[in-house]
Parts: sequence; structure tokens; C-alpha cells
Amino acid sequence: MAFTRLWDKGGALNEVMHELTVGNDPVLDRELVCADAVGSAAHARMLASCGLLGESELRSLLGALKEIFESGRAGTFEIPAALEDVHTAIEGSLTESLGEPGRRIHTARSRNDQIVLATRLHLRRQVALVLDALLGIAEALSARFKDSGSIDMPGYTHMQPAMPSSVGMWLHSVQEVVLELVDEGLHLTSIIDRQPLGSGAGFGTSLPIDREKTAKLLEFSEVQRSFIDVNNSRGRYELKFLRWCVDIASAFEKLACDVMLFATREFGFISLPNDLTTGSSIMPQKRNPDVVELLRGRAARVRGACDELAWVTAKLTSSYHRDLQYTKEPFLRGAAETAAVLRMARLIIEGLRFDRDRLSRSMHPELYATYEANRLVAKGVPFRDAYRETAKLVESGKLDVASLKKDFELARKETESGMALATARLEGLSPKVAEYVAKLDRVDEQVFKID
Amino acid sequence: MAFTRLWDKGGALNEVMHELTVGNDPVLDRELVCADAVGSAAHARMLASCGLLGESELRSLLGALKEIFESGRAGTFEIPAALEDVHTAIEGSLTESLGEPGRRIHTARSRNDQIVLATRLHLRRQVALVLDALLGIAEALSARFKDSGSIDMPGYTHMQPAMPSSVGMWLHSVQEVVLELVDEGLHLTSIIDRQPLGSGAGFGTSLPIDREKTAKLLEFSEVQRSFIDVNNSRGRYELKFLRWCVDIASAFEKLACDVMLFATREFGFISLPNDLTTGSSIMPQKRNPDVVELLRGRAARVRGACDELAWVTAKLTSSYHRDLQYTKEPFLRGAAETAAVLRMARLIIEGLRFDRDRLSRSMHPELYATYEANRLVAKGVPFRDAYRETAKLVESGKLDVASLKKDFELARKETESGMALATARLEGLSPKVAEYVAKLDRVDEQVFKID
Amino acid sequence: MAFTRLWDKGGALNEVMHELTVGNDPVLDRELVCADAVGSAAHARMLASCGLLGESELRSLLGALKEIFESGRAGTFEIPAALEDVHTAIEGSLTESLGEPGRRIHTARSRNDQIVLATRLHLRRQVALVLDALLGIAEALSARFKDSGSIDMPGYTHMQPAMPSSVGMWLHSVQEVVLELVDEGLHLTSIIDRQPLGSGAGFGTSLPIDREKTAKLLEFSEVQRSFIDVNNSRGRYELKFLRWCVDIASAFEKLACDVMLFATREFGFISLPNDLTTGSSIMPQKRNPDVVELLRGRAARVRGACDELAWVTAKLTSSYHRDLQYTKEPFLRGAAETAAVLRMARLIIEGLRFDRDRLSRSMHPELYATYEANRLVAKGVPFRDAYRETAKLVESGKLDVASLKKDFELARKETESGMALATARLEGLSPKVAEYVAKLDRVDEQVFKID
Amino acid sequence: MAFTRLWDKGGALNEVMHELTVGNDPVLDRELVCADAVGSAAHARMLASCGLLGESELRSLLGALKEIFESGRAGTFEIPAALEDVHTAIEGSLTESLGEPGRRIHTARSRNDQIVLATRLHLRRQVALVLDALLGIAEALSARFKDSGSIDMPGYTHMQPAMPSSVGMWLHSVQEVVLELVDEGLHLTSIIDRQPLGSGAGFGTSLPIDREKTAKLLEFSEVQRSFIDVNNSRGRYELKFLRWCVDIASAFEKLACDVMLFATREFGFISLPNDLTTGSSIMPQKRNPDVVELLRGRAARVRGACDELAWVTAKLTSSYHRDLQYTKEPFLRGAAETAAVLRMARLIIEGLRFDRDRLSRSMHPELYATYEANRLVAKGVPFRDAYRETAKLVESGKLDVASLKKDFELARKETESGMALATARLEGLSPKVAEYVAKLDRVDEQVFKID
Repeated sequence: MAFTRLWDKGGALNEVMHELTVGNDPVLDRELVCADAVGSAAHARMLASCGLLGESELRSLLGALKEIFESGRAGTFEIPAALEDVHTAIEGSLTESLGEPGRRIHTARSRNDQIVLATRLHLRRQVALVLDALLGIAEALSARFKDSGSIDMPGYTHMQPAMPSSVGMWLHSVQEVVLELVDEGLHLTSIIDRQPLGSGAGFGTSLPIDREKTAKLLEFSEVQRSFIDVNNSRGRYELKFLRWCVDIASAFEKLACDVMLFATREFGFISLPNDLTTGSSIMPQKRNPDVVELLRGRAARVRGACDELAWVTAKLTSSYHRDLQYTKEPFLRGAAETAAVLRMARLIIEGLRFDRDRLSRSMHPELYATYEANRLVAKGVPFRDAYRETAKLVESGKLDVASLKKDFELARKETESGMALATARLEGLSPKVAEYVAKLDRVDEQVFKID
Repeated sequence: MAFTRLWDKGGALNEVMHELTVGNDPVLDRELVCADAVGSAAHARMLASCGLLGESELRSLLGALKEIFESGRAGTFEIPAALEDVHTAIEGSLTESLGEPGRRIHTARSRNDQIVLATRLHLRRQVALVLDALLGIAEALSARFKDSGSIDMPGYTHMQPAMPSSVGMWLHSVQEVVLELVDEGLHLTSIIDRQPLGSGAGFGTSLPIDREKTAKLLEFSEVQRSFIDVNNSRGRYELKFLRWCVDIASAFEKLACDVMLFATREFGFISLPNDLTTGSSIMPQKRNPDVVELLRGRAARVRGACDELAWVTAKLTSSYHRDLQYTKEPFLRGAAETAAVLRMARLIIEGLRFDRDRLSRSMHPELYATYEANRLVAKGVPFRDAYRETAKLVESGKLDVASLKKDFELARKETESGMALATARLEGLSPKVAEYVAKLDRVDEQVFKID
Repeated sequence: MAFTRLWDKGGALNEVMHELTVGNDPVLDRELVCADAVGSAAHARMLASCGLLGESELRSLLGALKEIFESGRAGTFEIPAALEDVHTAIEGSLTESLGEPGRRIHTARSRNDQIVLATRLHLRRQVALVLDALLGIAEALSARFKDSGSIDMPGYTHMQPAMPSSVGMWLHSVQEVVLELVDEGLHLTSIIDRQPLGSGAGFGTSLPIDREKTAKLLEFSEVQRSFIDVNNSRGRYELKFLRWCVDIASAFEKLACDVMLFATREFGFISLPNDLTTGSSIMPQKRNPDVVELLRGRAARVRGACDELAWVTAKLTSSYHRDLQYTKEPFLRGAAETAAVLRMARLIIEGLRFDRDRLSRSMHPELYATYEANRLVAKGVPFRDAYRETAKLVESGKLDVASLKKDFELARKETESGMALATARLEGLSPKVAEYVAKLDRVDEQVFKID
Repeated sequence: MAFTRLWDKGGALNEVMHELTVGNDPVLDRELVCADAVGSAAHARMLASCGLLGESELRSLLGALKEIFESGRAGTFEIPAALEDVHTAIEGSLTESLGEPGRRIHTARSRNDQIVLATRLHLRRQVALVLDALLGIAEALSARFKDSGSIDMPGYTHMQPAMPSSVGMWLHSVQEVVLELVDEGLHLTSIIDRQPLGSGAGFGTSLPIDREKTAKLLEFSEVQRSFIDVNNSRGRYELKFLRWCVDIASAFEKLACDVMLFATREFGFISLPNDLTTGSSIMPQKRNPDVVELLRGRAARVRGACDELAWVTAKLTSSYHRDLQYTKEPFLRGAAETAAVLRMARLIIEGLRFDRDRLSRSMHPELYATYEANRLVAKGVPFRDAYRETAKLVESGKLDVASLKKDFELARKETESGMALATARLEGLSPKVAEYVAKLDRVDEQVFKID
């Protein structure tokens, strides 16, 4: 098998050290090129406004940073392994192309606060992307409620048939969680809405800078005032984001578990279109719901990323430690997994086919037993007595199901009005998300502008 | 050693089953007596307003429930092991003392939604308690900032001396997190602000009840509309709460790590009063900062409770499963741990003694090197060149520290104004917390009132 | 609701500190009375053999410790809250009843190594109990294989019908894991087989003691030589134990997941006897497999205990820290959960009823498709071609199932011989477990003997 | 910033599905090329010995597989994204280059058992690599014990000075854990020593194959008999491996925590050579112990990988599910992290410099207090009385330290003899590891041989 004895000194110690400390950063950091360019542009503008940078220096920096931003967006900005990370690579590129101005950009800035800013800019963009995808799923759920919500379905507790339910009741439960997740995401945008630059290595700077100015340029609503807290917050906001991702992945994990159960041959309530299933390498007859299993599996990966981040940040004293660098990988990995989760969830929700016939035949009489008990209660029988009487009726097979079916209408109507309310909330949330996305787009555009 | 072979059938199978399924609930549930009494009172009022319960029945139920509430508050309400849980015990007690009305209380209610309601009422009370304690700590931090904030202290990165810092800068960083935690807690109160009762076993009811009425009586701002989501949310809100607790415990874990380091003989920046330290069983000379170590250790316990809850709720299909019962123990355990964390953190913050002399002697010249580089930058030297020049100055021991010390004033003032802003925010948050507590108190009082 | 403001100073600071640092130890430690008595007796004997304790002192100590051991076994030894823990309580009890000899027992011992020893003695007893229970389950599985192993059952992949399987094939898979778990447990007994006493507070002692003697008395095969490692190993062995518990709980979690699926109305392969199911508070017709759900749920609790312990012990510098005290609770809680898991698993395995009729009707023709492909392969058709030909046969409904059923015999025989091998291994493992239990019993008996 | 809206349908659905289900496999699987070639070669030999493959077919397959193995070792075997994974790519390559024989290689094999085998072969190679690196570290520790073991160092409990210790005592504690880890690794080799091929999709095969033959060719000591357990064990053995990796990473995390503390300016016991430290981007005077912090940080990453794997495999019913594919990434990631941990740990251990002067000056008198108490005990004073007398002596500064220092000799000698024992054990373990590596090398060489 292929293996190098990784721990033998295969090169000069300096190379080994470089490899062990820099690790995968040059690859990971490709995702952060745009964010660092935006953050650096705002920093340069602020320096100029405080007289720490000349006007022409600013102009050349903004021009060069805009180019870096564009190549970052196009995926063509290269980070040489020798330069450690995106931050060094961008400063290096500026120095190389501009000379003096490039060597001034690090004024009143430490790599510590620079990284925190770039990460925060990337983070808020990720939050926006996830919010947008959640709204897309909410719309898909509304559409499916319209086309299939009225189909009856048995309701289960303990995985045993319990009471009448419906496809709509099931979709409504997913919709409520999706809307709650949108609420949580919007709250998250407010928690992370603090500009960290200017805290330097974690103890401020002796240069007369203007942190509010940077905040304004980047449309942060306030400055993260505590210098030490800027470093302490490294990983803390990413953790809040990843927990939100875990909640998202968990919601669709539950959906996946439901779909896999309902798609068994034995239940047969649901099927997936052929293009959402795969074949077997050995069993010619099979069509497998791989994409649903992987949706479940991806929740485990998001949880893993979240756990990893928690381990990295735990039990550290205040201020910067190099292991905080390891907050980046689980953050980026978790974000990518969540993007895949959202994409798969939407495909599945849109693709589900409900087998009306199988569902109809599954509405067994005993599902209606509680309704019978409730009828007795409405006539004045105490519930505990009604419960016992109904149990006897069920055993003797004498439930009048045809009549009891009408009593489901109350729950059906409640579900319809609940879904209508959810749709109304959705209409209220969409503009907020759109506004947030627009703000981020505006910053990306304005920050490089030379007036 | 003492051990019974737990898995041998030491009794009749029914007893064994009872023990294995009921577990520790009768003990745990003592904490939920008041919440279940309050929830049941609201339910009874709602039933009466819908004509499903007579006026005199309501009166007798409210009277009995108020008594149960009072005995729950006093810690004297007993839950017989044979009755499984607090919900059965309360219904049993009502039936025994009142007869017929007791047997009517379970009308249009399932144990499922009953438990969700009781848990939610308990949860919002826990949130209120934690919020209140956080405000207390914020006040303690403000006080310590006043009495010790101006003391200089070395700032560390990588645990190596880096730049000038101060006790105030350190306290400010804790304060910012505490205020963020208060923000998070207030957001949590809005997320959990939904009334679950009336969802029955998870598929609604055929009885004409009024879920909004129950919400109004309990001062929830809305009804949790999706029947299925009520069960699906079991553990979900508790998990959000426990993550908040983890963030709280993590914040003070960091404080504990700092204090333990600063309290070593070698650093000697901080000491604890004698009544916050303990002795050794073997080493006569020692005073140990046990309480600080346990503050750190308790963070691990809160994380454990949070992880346990996540494991319980993962990968379940929709609707109720009996393992959801196991959401209760980590919730209650995590809440109790968090209460201890908050209490210990406050004692430590209030008790810390700063050794001004040791701190002063620790302000080594090289801490000021970055200030020197910044002076060169202010004169127009590009940062990268200034960096190299300063490095040489440091090596040759020629830094003019006396003069450079003045440059710390900028960061000191920033910290003072940051803390002033924090204090202003604190004053804005206090009334919100007080209002929330007042609402919960009002509900507890009003819900039993017989007009 | 009932709540005290836990963080308010409700008493004198010393009381508060006592409560916050001692916590639940007086209750938890009841489980450790016997272990501490045994460890103390061995320590006393060793001291006497080194001339650090007189013969008559030893006699009185052994007598008193045996009484403590007996009351620990009977569950009647009380640990006053004021005395912190079992170790202090036992020393206190000895001093009170014996005077001088009681005050000598702590010679050359620190509470640190005393706790490690008591925990290790308790741990090895727990390992023995779990091993014994695993063997009981292995026997139950063998019995079920005999009575039901030959029943055909569909085999699933992706939860879709795949190939012919059998109840026996399923039981065999559980048996293999159980035996692997026994192997792991026996390995664990060897890893923890090191006597820690004599390391003192973690840096040895200046008194001329004989650590080998203590090891011999307690039948440990060696001394844990490194003084520092004794404290560092606190929690480390408990973690290994809890991971083993997690593997055990995971194995039965999988069994529970299978049983719950197979026990749905829609699958209907399996049912549980009435005394292993419970009713619903609202739905009169239901019988729920609560005990199976709780078996699944308990796995989550064991994982939680394991995670908690990992959090407690992570990122600590060498040697003793007070938070190591928090290694005890997750250890004891995890052990208790595992005992319940094993008991429930056995009840379920013994109670399962297989519905031969439903199972037989579920053996759909397409399960045999792979056999058809294999027949073509045996005739020389490359597998990939045979795969495609068979797929066509299945689609057209032309599989000759009656004939293909014979081809299952090969797998059936493999399973039977595999199970026979497993039974043989089981017979080899039982005496090893019995021997280990006998050793522990012997130590408990011999260590108090006065010759 | 750069982002595509990942969830929008950017391509035809089939492409999207391919991307979402195949994921990163073509990249990850490069590590498994050699293992799959070896497993396939053994499978082909077995098929030929059972008459399911012709002799000339076998020859051509072995030749082609050997080439694939070599290109896998050289890192040049390409896995086209369109072919999903290494298994498909190798079968595709064989079919393309050899025609018919390539299409026969999948006879009596499913991708399920094929993957389990390849993973297991890779796993045992990883275990061997880690074992080898652990032995290297053990040797480094022995060497450091020789050159620096006799230097005195304060021993700490609660991070407070407690008793005399030494560099040797500290190194010994690390050595003991390393040897325990080697023991655990050797045990792991026995647990995973089971040949899974021939279980097919999880329910055996109807073809007359010889699973023992495959085991013999690959030098597994037995066949994994239960068909279902082969799939159930997917992830289970990887989890055991990752837990071992966690234990390894934890051991060196503790070392890192110690080194970072001892390397602070305030402690000053230890320094790192310049080539193991890095500079600061802003503070000209600093040298930071990044590599030590990253060693601590990598432990968090290994724990994250382990947690992720646990989440993937939890709560699944028996047999194969597609999410089991996600067992691969955390396994490979965790293994790579562990390799880095071992490499860094060795560099640090070899590079540490002990500051004899600072250490000597840190041996404060009160460290010897317990020795004084023990002297009184040796004269017959009960320990509790001696404890109190000594406490007074310490307070009055009257400890006779010069004389007490001699009492450290006992602990020093114990440590020396403990280390000697460890060295002897190490010499016993080395050949076992070498033998295991030799076996794996032999299999890789023999399995392709055409006689």
C-alpha cells in the first residue's frame, strides 16, 4: 500500500515545520480571497481618512484589491504554499505590484484582527446564502402542500398507528421548523454584526485610527469594542453558525428518516422519481434512495464539524493561541455540507410522490378510536371512562369509522389555517433576507469605488 | 464490594419493566410540579370557557391545583414511584381529592402535549433565572472595573508577553460576552414563546377547544400551530437552552483558565481570599483554588448534558417516541449545573485580589515594542520596515519605555469608553429581564384565581 | 414555580463553598464504600508489613474496615455531607471508633492515590458485572437461534428488500458483536490491572513503603510505576470503560432499531409480549414498544456520559486538578445505564415473537434475483452481463423462484456453522470471566482476614 | 465574495445527483488504491482456486492489479470523477485493459464487502504506521531521560507548587502512556484481524467460494463469519482506531499543555529551539511556540473526526445504508491528523531545552513540607498530627530543606527503576510491531505473484 512514513524527517526541519504549521491553509483560504480583499479595502480607506495613507496610495491599493476580489470570485487567485495563507498572499501581491503602498496596508492591523474580519465577512455571506436556500425550501413546501396536502395519512406514535393525519399535517410540521430556522438565522445576523478590525493583536493600537469608519464602510452596525474579546470571539461566532447548521441538518435528517420509512416496500406511502435513486452493484432489481440516506448522513457530518470546532476552542485562556487557526476548517467544511443538505432537501421535497392508493388503504379503523372517546367526552363522560369504553369498542370491531372520519375535519382545518399563517410569515421574512443580501452585495461593490 | 446483579430478574417482570421504563422520573419530576400545576390550571380554564367543564368543577380544580402548586414550591409534593411521573401524580391527586372533576382534567389533552407544556413553562422560568444571574455578574464586573480596571497587566498571545494590557481590558472582555449572552437569552425567550397544548398526541383533537385561550392565559404570544411539530420540538428548545448554557459555562471556563494561570506562584498576578481556597490532605503548606478548577470542570458537565440531549433527539422519525422522555434529565441537569456555574463565577469575580506590585513588575520593556514600530509608522515608515527596525532596538535593549508607556493611553481610553457603553447597554437590558420575570410571576399568580 | 435564586448568597460563604465544591459526592460515593474499605485494608496490611503500623493496630483497623465493607454492601453506610466524601467518612469513622490507629491509616497515602485505587477497584468490579451480563445475553441469543434461527426473513439494504436472509442470520450478527465485546472487556481487565497506591499526591513518598505488596494483596498483576501517571490516568481508564459501554449500548441500539422497524404494523415480522409493552394515555387501542425505544434512548445516555468524561479530562496539564473529581459522576452514571441496557436487551431478546406467516409472505421473488445472476456466472457468463440479463428477467416476472430458493442453503449452512463456532468461542470465554469474578471475590474476602 | 448558489440547479439533475452522492470520493479514494488492488488480487486468486476464474484470466488480472498497485503507491493512479470511486475505477481499468477477465473480477463480490475489505487493509496499515511512530517516540523519551532526567523540577497539583519532582519523573509519565498506547494498538490488530470478503451485499452468496482461502492469502487469522455483521462493522473498527488516535492525541495534548506552561516567561523551565518557533506579524520581539499550540489543536481535530464517525454510524438498522460511505472521510482525516500529531510530538520531545538554572531556583522550601511530615510519621507520630506540626514549621520558615532534599532520593530511584522497566518492555514490544509490519509487507508482495 502507499504510505510514506510521515513522521520521518523527509526534508529539512524548516520545511517540515512549514508543512506541520501551515497545513491545508493555502487551499482552504481560496474561499476567503474575496472577504480579505473587501476587508483590506475598507481598512485602506479608513487609514487614508485618518491620514495614515496618502490618497494616491489608496487609489492604487483599491484598484489592486478590486482585481484580487475579481480573481477570487473567478477562483483564479493563487495562494503559493510558501506564503502560508490568503492574508500574506494578498499583502505579498500588493507589495509586488504596487511597491510602497503594499507595504503600508498592514499599518495598525495585526494578522489576528485581519483574519477575524475576513472570517466575519465570509460568515455573514454564508448566513445569507443559507437563509436564501431556506426560503426556497419553504416555497417548495408550500407548493407541495397545495398539490398533496389533503391526502390522508396515518399518524404514528412509537412508530405504531395512532390517529388520522395527512400529508399536509406532515408538511406543515416541516414548514414550521424551516420558518423557525429563518428566524434564528436573522437573529444570527444581528449577533455577528460587529466590526472587529482595529483590535490589533488583541490589545488595541497606539495609532490614531477610526474603528467606526471601518464599520460604516462595511455596513456593520457597531464596533466590537473589547480588544481582547475580538480574539476570544474567534470560533465563537462560527460555532453559533454551525449550531444553526446542525439545526438545519437535523430538521432534514428527520425528514429523511420519515421518507426512508415511508418509502419502504412495506409502508409504500412515498416513492422517489428514478433520477433521485440509484442501482445496486450486485442486485439487479434494486432502486435505492441513496440521496435520502446521504441527506441523513450529512447531518452527521455537520454535527462532526460543530463538535470539532467546540473542541478547538474549549479550555483556552484569553487572547490569541495558534490553535485558533483550526477554527477555520470545520467552519468552512460545515458550511459546505450545509449547502449540500439544503440542495438535497429541496430536490427530495420537490421529487416526492405520494401513493394515494396505499395511503388510503392504510387508514385503519383503530386510528379513529380517540375520536370515539372524544365524542363520549363531549356528551359528558369523563375522559378516563370514555377511554375504557372505547377500548372495548375497538376490540369488538364496532367503531363507526365512516361517521368518525368527519371528526378529522377540525384538525384538517387547523392545519390549513396554520399553513396559511406560515405562508404569511414567509412573505414577511423574504424581504428581510433580500435586504440583507442586498447590503452585502452593496458593500462588495462600494468598498472598491474610487470617487 | 456492593453490587446486585442488576440484570438478574430480582422481581416479577412487571416490577422490572416499571423500573426500567420509569427510571428516575419520580425524583426528577419534583422540579416540574409547579409547571404542571400552572399548565393544568390554564387547561381547565380553557375547557370551562369552551363548555367542556362546568364552572363548579373548574373552581374545585383551581383550588386543588393551587394547593399542589404551593406544595411543589415548598418541595413537599410527593410523586409515588408507582405513579410514574408528575403528570400522573397530579391527575391522581385531583381525582382522589375531587372525584369527577379530576377525571375530567385530561379532556382534550394527551400526556404528550401536557409534558411539552410543563417543560416549556419550566424552561422559560429557567431562562429567566439565568438571565437574572447574568445581570448580577455584569454588575459585579462593572464594580471590579471601577476598583481595579486601571491596573496595568501584560497582554499575552501564545501565552507569551505581547503588548501592554490592563485588568480593565481583561474585565471588559468578560463583560462583552456576558452582555452578548443576555442578548442571546432574550432571543431565546422569543423562540420558545409558543403554546403547545391542544396538539394532543401529535395530530390534534376532534374536540372544539380554544388553543389561543390557553396561550393568552399563560401569556404565550402565539400558539404552536403544527400538531406534529409540538412533539418534534421536544428536546429542540431544551437543546437551544443547553447550548446557551454551554456558551455561558464556556465564557466562565475561559475566566477560570485565566485565573488559574494568573494565580500560579510563577505569575502571581491574582490571588483568592482564603474562604475561596481549600487545603490539601497530605501537603500542609498548600492553599488550592479548587473553586476555580471546578468552575472549569462544570463547563465540561454542561457540555456533557448538551451532547447527551443531542444524541437522544438525533435520527428519529417525526412524532412521539418514548426515548424523548430522556430529554428531561440532561435538561434539568444542565440547568442545575449552569446555576452553579453562575454562582461560582460571581463569587470568584467578586473575590479576586490583584497583586499590584507583581503586576507592575511584570510590565517588561519588550511589551512596548509594537508602540515603537507604530511611532515610526506615524512618521511615514512603511510598517514592514518599522517592524524590522524595532526588532533591532529591542535586541539591543534600547527601547525608550518610559516615553512609550504614554502610548497605552489610547487603548486605555478606548477600554473605558467601551465599558461605559457596556454599562449603558446593561441598563437597557435590565428592565427587559425584569419585565420577563414579572410576566412569569403574574401568570403563576393569575392562573389559579377564581373570580 | 419552585425556584430559589441559586446564586444569591443564601448562607454563610463557607456553606456555599462547601455546597459548590463537594456537590453530590456524599450520595455518589455510597457506591464506593466497599472499594475504599478494601483498598484501605490492603494499605494497612502493607504499612504493617513495612513496620509503619503495629500488629494490634492492624487488627483493629481490619476489623473496623470489614464492618464498613459489610455496611457498604448492605447500603447502610452513611456519608455525612459535612465530611465531603467516602474517603474522609471512612477515615473519620475509623478515628472515631479506634482512636490512634484511625489517625495512622493515612500514612504514606494521599487522597489522590486513595481515590484512584478505590475507583479502580470499583471499575474492575463493574467490568466483571458487564462481562457476566454479556455472557448471559450470548446464551439467550444461542437459545433464540435454536428455536427460531431457521425462519426465513427478507434481507434489506438501504431499507429496501435485497436478498434472502433469516432470523438466524440476524441473530448471528448480534452474537458476533456480543462476543467481540466480551473480548474487548477481557482486554480492558488487562489494561486496568495496575496498582496505583503509593504514588501519593503524584510525586511518590519519602516513606519506605512496598507498592508491590499492596499489588499482591489486591491481586493486581503490576504496580502503576509512574507517580505522575497515576493522576494522569484518572478518568483515562474510566473513559476506556465508558467507550466499551458505548459499544455495548450501540450494539443493542441497532437491535432496538431493527426490532422497532420489524414491529411496525406495516412490517409485522416481530411482536413483543404484552408485559413488554405499555398503553397510551389517550389512544385506547395502542400497545407501544416503550422498552425498545428506551433501549435505543439509553444508548444516547451512555454516549452522553462518555462525552462528558472526555470533556472533563481534555486539555489539562499533568498531575492533579480538582476538576478530575468530575470524572466520577459520568463513570458511575454510565455504568448504571449500561447495566440497564444489558437487562433490557436480554428481556427483549428473550421476549421477541416472530410472526412466521408474515415473514413467509414477505419473501418476494425479486429477493432471489442475485441468485439467478450467480447461476449465470457459474455457467461462465461474466458477472456484469449476468447482472443485466437478470434485471430483464425480474422486470418480466420470469424468475424461477421455487428453484432459486434452494440456493439459499449455502448461506444458511454458513450461518449455522458460524453460530456453532461462536458457541464454541463462548464456551472458551465463560471460564475466563468466571475466573476474573472469582479473583475479585477472593480479594474482598482475603483482604480483611486476620491470621 | 465568491459563491455559487449551490442549491440552484446549475446543471442537469443527473449531474447534480452525481455531485451530491459521489462527493469527494474520487479524491479521498486515492489513498485506497493499493488496498483495493491487494484485496482484488486475493479475491481473484480465490476465485481461480474455486474454478470460478481461469488460470490465464488470473494471470492477466494479477499483472494488471500489480501495475495498479504500483501506480497507487506512486500516487499516479487517477480516479475519474465519473467513475464514482476507486472500486469502480479499478474494475473499469481492468475491463478496459483486459476485456473479459476484468468483467469477471466482480464475481461473488459486492461493492459492499469489497469496500469493507479495502478499508480494513488500509486500516491495518495505518495501525502499523502509528505503532511504528509510537516506538520512535518512546525511544526519544528514553534518550531525553538519559540526558535530562536527573534535573529537579517542582511538582504541581492544582497548578500550585506541591512536592519535589524532576524532569525524569515527568518524562516517565509520558513514557508509560506511550507504552500503554502501543499495547492498545497491538490489541487493535487482533480485533480487526478478520477477513470480510465473501459476505456479498450482506447476506452471503450462492456461489461456492472459499472465504478461508482469501483470509489465508491476506494473512488474516480468521474469517468474519456473520454476513450481516460485515456491513454492521463498517465504521465500527474505524471508530476503535479513531478512539486510539484520540488517546494518542490526548497524551500529546497534555504534553503540549505542560510545555506551553513551562515555556511561559514566568515559568521559564523550558524553551524551544528557534526552528520550532515562529514570529509575529505585528510584534517584532516575539518568538511563539506555534508548533506546540498546534499539537494541542490537532487533538481537537482528531476528536472531531472521531465524533463525526460516531454520529454517522449511530441509530442505524442492521445492514448497509448509503450513509455508511461517510465513515471513510473521518477515518482518513483522523489518520492523517494522527500522523501529524506523532511527527510534531517527536520534534518537540527531541527539541525541548531545560533551563537548569531556572528549574533549580524554583525548588522552593515548602515543596519539602510533606517530607518533614513523613519524618515525624516514621518516628511514630500519627499522620494527622504530623501534618499539623509541619504546617506550623512551614509558616515559621523553619523547614530544614538541605536535609530534607535527601528524602527525594527514594522517589528518584523509583523513577529510574520504573524507566528501566519501561525500556525493557519497549524492547519486548518492538519485535511485535516489526513482525506485524513485515506481515503486511509480505502480503503486498506475495499476493500479486504469479507462480
